[in-house]
Amino acid sequence: MTFSGVTVLDFTRVLAGPYCSMMLAELGADVIKIEEPGVGDESRAWAPYVNGQSGYFFSVNRSKRSVTINLKAPGAKSIVRDLAAKADVVLVNFAPGVPRRLGVDYGTLSAINPSLVYCSITGFGDTGPYKDRKAYDPILQAMSGLMSITGPRDGEPVKCGAAIVDVVAAVFGAFSVAASLYRRAMTGRGQYIDLAMLDSSLAMLTFQSAIYLCAGEVPTLFGSENPTRVPSANYPTRDGRYLHITVNDRQWAKFCEVLGAPEAASDPRFANTQLRVDHREEVNALIARCLATRTAEEWDQIFDEAGLPAGPVNSMDRALTDPQVLAREMVKQFLHPIAGPVKAVDMPYRFAEAGTNIRSAPPLLGEHTEEVLQGLLGYTKEEVARLRAEGVIG
Amino acid sequence: MTFSGVTVLDFTRVLAGPYCSMMLAELGADVIKIEEPGVGDESRAWAPYVNGQSGYFFSVNRSKRSVTINLKAPGAKSIVRDLAAKADVVLVNFAPGVPRRLGVDYGTLSAINPSLVYCSITGFGDTGPYKDRKAYDPILQAMSGLMSITGPRDGEPVKCGAAIVDVVAAVFGAFSVAASLYRRAMTGRGQYIDLAMLDSSLAMLTFQSAIYLCAGEVPTLFGSENPTRVPSANYPTRDGRYLHITVNDRQWAKFCEVLGAPEAASDPRFANTQLRVDHREEVNALIARCLATRTAEEWDQIFDEAGLPAGPVNSMDRALTDPQVLAREMVKQFLHPIAGPVKAVDMPYRFAEAGTNIRSAPPLLGEHTEEVLQGLLGYTKEEVARLRAEGVIG
Repeated sequence: MTFSGVTVLDFTRVLAGPYCSMMLAELGADVIKIEEPGVGDESRAWAPYVNGQSGYFFSVNRSKRSVTINLKAPGAKSIVRDLAAKADVVLVNFAPGVPRRLGVDYGTLSAINPSLVYCSITGFGDTGPYKDRKAYDPILQAMSGLMSITGPRDGEPVKCGAAIVDVVAAVFGAFSVAASLYRRAMTGRGQYIDLAMLDSSLAMLTFQSAIYLCAGEVPTLFGSENPTRVPSANYPTRDGRYLHITVNDRQWAKFCEVLGAPEAASDPRFANTQLRVDHREEVNALIARCLATRTAEEWDQIFDEAGLPAGPVNSMDRALTDPQVLAREMVKQFLHPIAGPVKAVDMPYRFAEAGTNIRSAPPLLGEHTEEVLQGLLGYTKEEVARLRAEGVIG
Repeated sequence: MTFSGVTVLDFTRVLAGPYCSMMLAELGADVIKIEEPGVGDESRAWAPYVNGQSGYFFSVNRSKRSVTINLKAPGAKSIVRDLAAKADVVLVNFAPGVPRRLGVDYGTLSAINPSLVYCSITGFGDTGPYKDRKAYDPILQAMSGLMSITGPRDGEPVKCGAAIVDVVAAVFGAFSVAASLYRRAMTGRGQYIDLAMLDSSLAMLTFQSAIYLCAGEVPTLFGSENPTRVPSANYPTRDGRYLHITVNDRQWAKFCEVLGAPEAASDPRFANTQLRVDHREEVNALIARCLATRTAEEWDQIFDEAGLPAGPVNSMDRALTDPQVLAREMVKQFLHPIAGPVKAVDMPYRFAEAGTNIRSAPPLLGEHTEEVLQGLLGYTKEEVARLRAEGVIG
């Protein structure tokens, strides 16, 4: 597999860090998740539940091994040193200052293993006036400007329903680790990576930030619509379900015909995108009137057959059982010792060789402590028993 | 730099593909953007504008070279062959079937250069019943379920204001290319990557898809709030600006005190997260009442000093001029020959060595045609002149 032979020492919890390490794990890296004895990753307690196990935790912790170490115990230092010596990558998402206190900061670990690739994911990064501020995904959606452009026209800002800043930071993190592993393969050198979730959220905004930086304008809430393109919006259909339609100038005439409003194609008010933007309400009213005559599924099929870009606003159950999603095998399954068979969404890239895969179920807390200490580090059964008796491992 | 010596042959347009190649370019890859003579990437014509130049195009095409080739001209085949022989990575985001028609499909190019890493980004992927369907970012936000969880409670679904599916597909694409380059460095083998935007959007949904896959429930619209945590929402302040606040059980007592409602800390209705969820409206009303006494900026400072997680819902102008964003140097500048000095948002990762940087302004259409054909491919001035006279290059 792509990352065969790569060992990742993973001190992260909750979402951004675990998602990042799961990406590496499912391309073949050996991800060793270090957790606190007794408690573990706090998201192990979070809804939704399957037989008392957390579906939240499941969604970003597949294909890893769990080792429980009490990092505050004096005896933990030598285990961490031995792990760092075997590792290629270290991931942390602690608040600034915490890695040093726990003895897992870059300075300490790179002194043991200078070729480490070490990635720290934090809310605001290692520098700047907010570096010690606490952050959650919606706070960063708010501060980055993303919320200010998400919500109904003339309404209030809402959040993007996915924890998008966490996820995007995770994927930027995985990219920066993969790029650094490539560089290390070419030069032998590791490095430190400081990745902020706020910066990651800003980097998503592309043309929305350009509207301010290039044109000095401030983008606003626009519902499901597009300020510079009409039609591009959700329209209700006969069964109440919405269809999203986005049509360009080349497609407009055909669209009018398929819609059952051929006269609109030659209406001078609607002749090009700019004119349709100027007559937004009329265009929207016309389309809504036509769409009300059939169900979302009927319209979806009609537009698809005509080669026009449209798609239904799917609820999550519809999305995850859609024929395309099933054909792409995006929903996989793993067998968990307590939860039983559990379905899970796969990673999106399909490699012709050396692909991605669910390699094992999300680990039970401390499931691989012995296996890693004895197998990877060569500790004896007796040493492991002593460490457990001393409360160093859980 | 990280990708020094890596040559990327980039046939992509608009957003997902260009963002992906810009990530590679700003870590040092030589990205050669192949464009149609006279027209180029269609987003060169899109708002916002600076001196007639597209800020949309600028936002995802920095640090690349532009070469104009008429891929439909018979004489183009040998140029493409020569470029493929020099390339390490090929990126396309054509509709399925188009690469083969243009002679830039994986089969053709890997026959010339077997160690190519070739990544195709499409709406629905190379397989499945929708593979030939047209897609734009909001259609995929709709079909993946993302829109169904984005919007006001009891309101209508809206889109995430950023083109988030395009961007996430771009970053997944860059990760899959970097991972494949690492694998190639270890094994010498290239490979083909099939990446779908619909799949990328599904992969973002983590715990939201787990709610359905693990618990059989269908998540709904929840505004700026969280179904399983209170408080976690936007609250209006005295000056009308919103503050997002997310507080957990450990922070609740301190939060009540700072809010000026110390009695709420001992109110049995609000004693833990589950109880506060059960009394959502009361908690929200209490907080809104208190927040109305000061401005967003005042409250932001108060919560920051108390170590409580909160942040203002920033408009894009505020976000891009925030002290933290400036301190992180997230807004950079390049000098464009027509637009002049232009500000742009940087990539988010900060590498201690071999970092990311704006290496050059977004290219003019065909700006580097001669440079690449003569410099990289070794064509003579006369050959280039002949190709231009024959309309093979622009």
